[in-house]
Amino acid sequence: MRARVLVRPKAGILDPQGVAVQRALPALGFEGVADVNVGRLIELDVEDPSQLEAMCEKLLVNPLIEDYSIQWPEADGRSQDAGPHAPRG
Amino acid sequence: MRARVLVRPKAGILDPQGVAVQRALPALGFEGVADVNVGRLIELDVEDPSQLEAMCEKLLVNPLIEDYSIQWPEADGRSQDAGPHAPRG
Repeated sequence: MRARVLVRPKAGILDPQGVAVQRALPALGFEGVADVNVGRLIELDVEDPSQLEAMCEKLLVNPLIEDYSIQWPEADGRSQDAGPHAPRG
Repeated sequence: MRARVLVRPKAGILDPQGVAVQRALPALGFEGVADVNVGRLIELDVEDPSQLEAMCEKLLVNPLIEDYSIQWPEADGRSQDAGPHAPRG
């Protein structure tokens, strides 16, 4: 089963990549952007979904400085990705 | 509006982080894992959602080697994150 792990810096932890993006966007003409965070996206096929949390704690995520959440695109019954479009209704 | 950009290596593009994770997991006792990809997760507040695609093309994503998709967690009306649990039905 395909799984998707979203890893992001914990609140209060320095996020230099996010800062860099936030500063670069106005220079490119994009205004109105705030609170940018850059983290990691891990996608993988797992035979046993119950193991995924342990994988995150032991390898994929540094729980001292990162939070994570898990998505199961197939189990959710529809695509979670809006694609490169404006938000749906 | 909060937006989430999922950036992943294009199919066929070398993904050394994904290879490293896939090799490390069996050594930690996790079997049955395949097709691991590691990409980037960018979360940001945008005032004008219609600008996000341009931001991706001009700064956030390298379209030569990366694909991306966009999620609008608020517009979707429910949390897309399963949390660290097994998949929902």
